[in-house]
Amino acid sequence: MAGSKYAYVRNFELPDPLLPGTFLIFRLDGHSFHRFSTEHQFTKPNDVQALMLMDHAARDVMEEYKDIVLAFGESDEYSFLLRKSTSLYNRRESKICSTLTSYFTSCYVFHWREYFPDVPLLYPPSFDGRIVVYPSSREIRDYFSWRQADTHINNLYNTIFWALVQQGGKTTTDAHAALRGTVSSQKHEMLFKSFGVNYNEIDARFRKGSILVRDIEDEPTPPELPEPTPASSTAGNQSHSEPTSAAETSQKSLKQKKNKAQTKAKTKINLLHCDIIKDEFWDARPHLLE
Amino acid sequence: MAGSKYAYVRNFELPDPLLPGTFLIFRLDGHSFHRFSTEHQFTKPNDVQALMLMDHAARDVMEEYKDIVLAFGESDEYSFLLRKSTSLYNRRESKICSTLTSYFTSCYVFHWREYFPDVPLLYPPSFDGRIVVYPSSREIRDYFSWRQADTHINNLYNTIFWALVQQGGKTTTDAHAALRGTVSSQKHEMLFKSFGVNYNEIDARFRKGSILVRDIEDEPTPPELPEPTPASSTAGNQSHSEPTSAAETSQKSLKQKKNKAQTKAKTKINLLHCDIIKDEFWDARPHLLE
Amino acid sequence: MAGSKYAYVRNFELPDPLLPGTFLIFRLDGHSFHRFSTEHQFTKPNDVQALMLMDHAARDVMEEYKDIVLAFGESDEYSFLLRKSTSLYNRRESKICSTLTSYFTSCYVFHWREYFPDVPLLYPPSFDGRIVVYPSSREIRDYFSWRQADTHINNLYNTIFWALVQQGGKTTTDAHAALRGTVSSQKHEMLFKSFGVNYNEIDARFRKGSILVRDIEDEPTPPELPEPTPASSTAGNQSHSEPTSAAETSQKSLKQKKNKAQTKAKTKINLLHCDIIKDEFWDARPHLLE
Amino acid sequence: MAGSKYAYVRNFELPDPLLPGTFLIFRLDGHSFHRFSTEHQFTKPNDVQALMLMDHAARDVMEEYKDIVLAFGESDEYSFLLRKSTSLYNRRESKICSTLTSYFTSCYVFHWREYFPDVPLLYPPSFDGRIVVYPSSREIRDYFSWRQADTHINNLYNTIFWALVQQGGKTTTDAHAALRGTVSSQKHEMLFKSFGVNYNEIDARFRKGSILVRDIEDEPTPPELPEPTPASSTAGNQSHSEPTSAAETSQKSLKQKKNKAQTKAKTKINLLHCDIIKDEFWDARPHLLE
Repeated sequence: MAGSKYAYVRNFELPDPLLPGTFLIFRLDGHSFHRFSTEHQFTKPNDVQALMLMDHAARDVMEEYKDIVLAFGESDEYSFLLRKSTSLYNRRESKICSTLTSYFTSCYVFHWREYFPDVPLLYPPSFDGRIVVYPSSREIRDYFSWRQADTHINNLYNTIFWALVQQGGKTTTDAHAALRGTVSSQKHEMLFKSFGVNYNEIDARFRKGSILVRDIEDEPTPPELPEPTPASSTAGNQSHSEPTSAAETSQKSLKQKKNKAQTKAKTKINLLHCDIIKDEFWDARPHLLE
Repeated sequence: MAGSKYAYVRNFELPDPLLPGTFLIFRLDGHSFHRFSTEHQFTKPNDVQALMLMDHAARDVMEEYKDIVLAFGESDEYSFLLRKSTSLYNRRESKICSTLTSYFTSCYVFHWREYFPDVPLLYPPSFDGRIVVYPSSREIRDYFSWRQADTHINNLYNTIFWALVQQGGKTTTDAHAALRGTVSSQKHEMLFKSFGVNYNEIDARFRKGSILVRDIEDEPTPPELPEPTPASSTAGNQSHSEPTSAAETSQKSLKQKKNKAQTKAKTKINLLHCDIIKDEFWDARPHLLE
Repeated sequence: MAGSKYAYVRNFELPDPLLPGTFLIFRLDGHSFHRFSTEHQFTKPNDVQALMLMDHAARDVMEEYKDIVLAFGESDEYSFLLRKSTSLYNRRESKICSTLTSYFTSCYVFHWREYFPDVPLLYPPSFDGRIVVYPSSREIRDYFSWRQADTHINNLYNTIFWALVQQGGKTTTDAHAALRGTVSSQKHEMLFKSFGVNYNEIDARFRKGSILVRDIEDEPTPPELPEPTPASSTAGNQSHSEPTSAAETSQKSLKQKKNKAQTKAKTKINLLHCDIIKDEFWDARPHLLE
Repeated sequence: MAGSKYAYVRNFELPDPLLPGTFLIFRLDGHSFHRFSTEHQFTKPNDVQALMLMDHAARDVMEEYKDIVLAFGESDEYSFLLRKSTSLYNRRESKICSTLTSYFTSCYVFHWREYFPDVPLLYPPSFDGRIVVYPSSREIRDYFSWRQADTHINNLYNTIFWALVQQGGKTTTDAHAALRGTVSSQKHEMLFKSFGVNYNEIDARFRKGSILVRDIEDEPTPPELPEPTPASSTAGNQSHSEPTSAAETSQKSLKQKKNKAQTKAKTKINLLHCDIIKDEFWDARPHLLE
């Protein structure tokens, strides 16, 4: 066969299996999103449309890859937890990492216009991805605590920073200077005293980030009934059923046909903006860390 | 600082540097593109618009990443050669692999409508990527020979196969059966005798694949002159200046501003459909394997 | 400085850290020990002196490397468990693997004459080593069960095989043939009927392998009292205080001085030949899997 | 089969192949040899017996592993070059690294008494090993230049340092202080003026390190003739046929029988103490870098 004398070059592809029996975290981050958010006029400190687009892309990834049981997003990053028993792509690192990054990116661009109907995409955005292996549930808990604590720190800072700039008339340099060395309680106070804002009443999406969780449905829902509406709607634990876009609906039949064979248990992906540092979230979902 | 007690989870991110002083090949492949090409009614055996979209995305990747000196595409796959001295992202494997896959994917979706104005994208396509490390120029030559020989084998087979189906009225099962065990010369003959097609006159793009090469420009081109038109136009060595779409033009100012700082030498990315197995191509471009 | 222009070659040494928070199993195997055991006239099926030399070398390794809490040996192999929190050599794989293999080998050759005073070492024996990473205690339990089950299977086979050859006058070919397809119970019966041997009465060292365990001493033992004698002495759970050779004694002062700083808790390495598949062994030593 | 339910633990042994088509350098270093050399009263700054023992162990390694074509030793370290086409142990990193380290260690202990008949080995010495992958001959040249330059720097320093201490009556602290900031030429001068020593007349073994090279023999040597004596005997290029110990002779028949099958070409391992930074050594041996 022609070409067979060159086929030896395949031997340079070395195996890259991830350790079995471990949790995998796949995290992706926007590439040069500082510039991207500026060029596309994202609202500061938080652009709800941009965050909802991130959530949409992340949900698509979870719909496609059933071994992802949990995801957490903030700003231009998203982390995904793959169950420790996953054998996705035989746990080949490059294959998993590149494919998930690619699919998320594709969904992001694909759905752009649904969230930014009046802002044309000026150039193709990109993300980088990585996989981190964790041996035990303790580290998984701490990983998500780490990300959510980061969300809190960044959002508190950005909220007061942009208030100083947008409402206080400060330059960005002055705003940074004003915040230097302040602790959390001082920022809360500045926000309240100067701008009348109670930080804890800010949208939970901004304060807590986005949690996409694959929940097990207790009872089979008859198809003719509407989807169950999440009961809770406190600021700290909001569950959204994102408005379904027209484009989404038109793709449904395709998706359903495609995923039918893979679906094993009755599960539903819920979007929450709740605390995931304390035990409550996890105690209610022991299957996440199995 | 809040969150610092969780920050230890970062220590589980292990380093993944690629060996210095080696050539890197980054290859990506369409994920489930058999289905994708069917759903989007790609012409068989080759859809020139789909191939041009692949070339466009590949060219964008090369514009963005200057250490890529050569790329080869066929069907839904593309291979990129990074010069052996590259220090892109400190040669971190996941970072390079995921970012390049992401950017290519993004460009593919972004430019879709320019190539398929009448075929809406039904769902987000994705690609997987991998990096293979090669120690010497010998293996790089053989790698590209391997891919181009593969293009030849596949295209010859597909050309006669689809002729049998589309013009010969055979079922796909019968067409496969008719080709079983035939060697190259027999396929050429079948094609000519039954369908009057001289394989060697088929579009070089299909027979040779797409070569994107970063060529060094001999003399600085004054900006007011049009781009030099490639001289050669033999079947085996065609060089295209892809028609520039409106969308491309509108993005030019952005791109130019962005890339200016990175540009070091006068180089130009040319698209060719020529032989890269024999020495001629390489002898003319010693810088590729430096 | 002379030589600095060559120092770049150090950059090719890539990092090889093992995943934090995981148990490490270091296993070594004799290299070509079939030949080695023949050349040095090891008794078949088990040479107690050779096994005691392996145990001695393994104990030396454990004395030197305090993060090894358990070891299991059979025939010419030994497995060592490093606690999951170990930061030995910053968990660098090559460093740990090569150093432990080297030290074991050195001890084996160094102590040879104590166990084989009349058999000169004809040539230098060697071992190969590897490190396997395990995320949880379940796999560690199963790893040691796997090795001890292997000991059982091999020893039962070898015991009846060599009885057939040595006492039954069969050729090795005939002995293998006689055993082909027999299950465990049949081998027990053959052994008892033909040779009057009750397999369960054979030395536990041969049936169970050697377990070296770092036990925590409950109370500080006053130096004037003799070492506590292990209570159990059933066939399945024998604990030996190996006779201390003269060479060992002469090295004691050195060792003691050297290890003093490293000793943190009152621990003692015990040699056992007991079951480690069932829970009892592990329930008594929860610290092993912490 | 008993034990099969545990055998899954084998799946945690991940593959570790080294990149094909690359040169492999295996380097080992004495573990805590500062203490070891003190305890065993090695002569300072160089103990010729200790160096000859290192050379002997290294030669044994090369006799056993035919894919090693070159080795360089200084002090308590040795580097070995494996040809780039080697498929030793399928290029599995741990296997190669641990086995070579083990065998070297074993030879070192095994031959100790031949070189130190009056100094009993007080405890088992050990070495650590590592493998570094190099893509091209340039880096191999530079690697060996790096090591030999290191030998020069260290030996010059140690020679004057120990002269100051042993003959000059300085404390080690004072000797270090006297040398602080001195350049090479000053050290040469100090050595000559204070102690009448011309550094270039010191034993080449100390100044150049030990080179073990697998040379191709031009013509088959008839077995009845003595081995050819190396012609050159200048200070910078001495070739030794180490005196063969009794122990070596007694093992010869074994070795010869064992290695016969592996021997493919007429080669001979020569010990040199010559320059390997300049081209001459390499130009005479093009096969080393093939």
